[in-house]
Amino acid sequence: MSLHDQTKLLIPGPIKMSPEVIGALGQQSVSHTCPTFTDSFRDSLTKLRRVYGADSTKGIPLIISGSGTLGFDLVGSNLIDSKKDNVLVLSTGFFSDEFHEAISQYYVEDASKQVTRLGAPNAGATVSIDEIERELGSKQYDLIVMTHVDTSTGVLLDVESIANLVHKVSPDTLIAVDTVCSLGCETIEFDKWGLDICISASQKAIGAPPGLSLGMVSENALKKHESLSSKSGSYYTSFTKWLPILRSFESGKSAYFATPPVQMIDSLRIALTQILEYSFDNQTGIHARIAKHKQTSDNFKTAVVEQMKQELVSGSLNNSAHGLTAIYVKDPPSVIQYMAKHGYTITGGIHKDIKSKYIRVGHMGISACDDSLNDVSGCLQTLSEALKQ
Amino acid sequence: MSLHDQTKLLIPGPIKMSPEVIGALGQQSVSHTCPTFTDSFRDSLTKLRRVYGADSTKGIPLIISGSGTLGFDLVGSNLIDSKKDNVLVLSTGFFSDEFHEAISQYYVEDASKQVTRLGAPNAGATVSIDEIERELGSKQYDLIVMTHVDTSTGVLLDVESIANLVHKVSPDTLIAVDTVCSLGCETIEFDKWGLDICISASQKAIGAPPGLSLGMVSENALKKHESLSSKSGSYYTSFTKWLPILRSFESGKSAYFATPPVQMIDSLRIALTQILEYSFDNQTGIHARIAKHKQTSDNFKTAVVEQMKQELVSGSLNNSAHGLTAIYVKDPPSVIQYMAKHGYTITGGIHKDIKSKYIRVGHMGISACDDSLNDVSGCLQTLSEALKQ
Repeated sequence: MSLHDQTKLLIPGPIKMSPEVIGALGQQSVSHTCPTFTDSFRDSLTKLRRVYGADSTKGIPLIISGSGTLGFDLVGSNLIDSKKDNVLVLSTGFFSDEFHEAISQYYVEDASKQVTRLGAPNAGATVSIDEIERELGSKQYDLIVMTHVDTSTGVLLDVESIANLVHKVSPDTLIAVDTVCSLGCETIEFDKWGLDICISASQKAIGAPPGLSLGMVSENALKKHESLSSKSGSYYTSFTKWLPILRSFESGKSAYFATPPVQMIDSLRIALTQILEYSFDNQTGIHARIAKHKQTSDNFKTAVVEQMKQELVSGSLNNSAHGLTAIYVKDPPSVIQYMAKHGYTITGGIHKDIKSKYIRVGHMGISACDDSLNDVSGCLQTLSEALKQ
Repeated sequence: MSLHDQTKLLIPGPIKMSPEVIGALGQQSVSHTCPTFTDSFRDSLTKLRRVYGADSTKGIPLIISGSGTLGFDLVGSNLIDSKKDNVLVLSTGFFSDEFHEAISQYYVEDASKQVTRLGAPNAGATVSIDEIERELGSKQYDLIVMTHVDTSTGVLLDVESIANLVHKVSPDTLIAVDTVCSLGCETIEFDKWGLDICISASQKAIGAPPGLSLGMVSENALKKHESLSSKSGSYYTSFTKWLPILRSFESGKSAYFATPPVQMIDSLRIALTQILEYSFDNQTGIHARIAKHKQTSDNFKTAVVEQMKQELVSGSLNNSAHGLTAIYVKDPPSVIQYMAKHGYTITGGIHKDIKSKYIRVGHMGISACDDSLNDVSGCLQTLSEALKQ
């Protein structure tokens, strides 16, 4: 039974899943407290730490039923004292601005006095380290918020350098990173870089179906949460509720706050396992996976720029994400339509300033990592034909 | 491939799903904006209205990625002005108390001045109409909150009579009902009873997998939401964000706030379709489904009380839910273990006062409605053996 057209899905999430992930999804329900599911949840939490480059004992990994958007609230409701905290939001596109809006929502008074948006000069650009340093020097920020890959532009932020800067010039500032479109395909070293909270989702480079909010929280962030005097004003997103549950499942014991989505977590477990077992270029695990995404992305972008003579929204390769490519084209709807007609689902732009001028192609998960599928090579070939029309 | 033990799942959610629902779940991802998925979301919203007995044009049905617990926040963050609103919470068990706690979370100051808990006199009892009338007469309540079926006790609240009372003695009070363990197996007449918001979940009598927060919102509740001056303090649960999205999908157009869980919604659609196509006792649709749940439940409870000489936590049949049975037994762990050994997954108590004294058996969805599966009859037989041990 196939409910939908079976084109090759190459949008920046949801992405094509492996047969094993689909198999784990299409299962009869079981009790959310049974030992085998408890073990599946435990294993998923443990493996999520490894994908984040996080220590096996410190901090807490997050797996919560909900969309990636829920992650904004996990930051807003648990790590900000809206009565006094200042927050700096770096914006590189649509999703950074959503994060900014979500954080502002947690301020009862006018948020603009305490929540500062530092935007890229134009769509496709990044925020310069110098500007960030200047802003961090202007007042004491309690939290800095950034988007590793803004899916609207395909811009890759240099999170490592920004984190180093923050630790140097403003060491008390907590670091929050939206890793929705980077977890599983970009280098993230949660511990080494000293990040405090990362939020993500299941349906992008992780390769599971949409419906899980993922993340990782540092010891420092947990301390901040404990120190907050004012209540969050949210129940479902409250760390006070979730942390004991996640700790319990990670230690192999079932616990209840909300019924966990058993099939979703079982399929996430398989997706994480496949990431950690992936081999490429004499490496195995998340680093192999990241290296392969880079190779696929670099090849794709180079062909788009050099052979097809198109311009990337994100400018240079250096500045570009490895899980998607945003490309300026003359007539996006006709390109998207041509691709669809020839079996490839890609998508259009969503950045407010350039919405009608570009297309986006996702190359994450098995489509990027298993060349034998010919997903990306076939897409490239068809795209070159589409551009000639 | 089977990831878990294949015992017969007879807990009060998650429940056993039909093969067609499982088939719709185990599908490759598609774009969340493609026409066939947009139509699946539209159809699910339309059918959810019918299961609620809600008008096809007024109000808004809710389908949001998250657990049932998220529904508490949908009420708390969108329908309460914590600066001035008084809320009356009727408590018939664990889940009512969770709802009470969630609502209180939205009050910055001490919530106890504005949020009143009116509890049943003991575990397994309901709250009397007289007491509710007295409390509604004591001050102006802006919202009354109740739990149709508290899954911790199996108590069924007479929502129709309470709603009638509220309309008579306190017509400006909005009515919020937790229908997590009643939607799909108990009579709910959203429009006729004049309810304002119902919240539910996918994994109980609806028969879909866990991971969707469901609900229905009235025109009056929408007006209340629009009139609120203070912000909710939550982003993911905000009606301001969700209502345009749900309206758009219901009118057949894709829209974006958070990536919808495509497989979950596809499987929900099949589950809702199967409910509306179900035939029993010369009826077809939700009323047939409810009548069959009543028959299964009454038979089960009568056998437990008359043949096995056990006592129901909810006392009389009149007072009892039709989707589960909570039964006092001498040694719950040994009964549960015996059942598991013989292929049936049931569960224990969770009400704080009587936790160690009872068991709970769920009989919802296909297990209750398809006698040929022998799920409930087999469970009954095995339970009678277990109690003789």
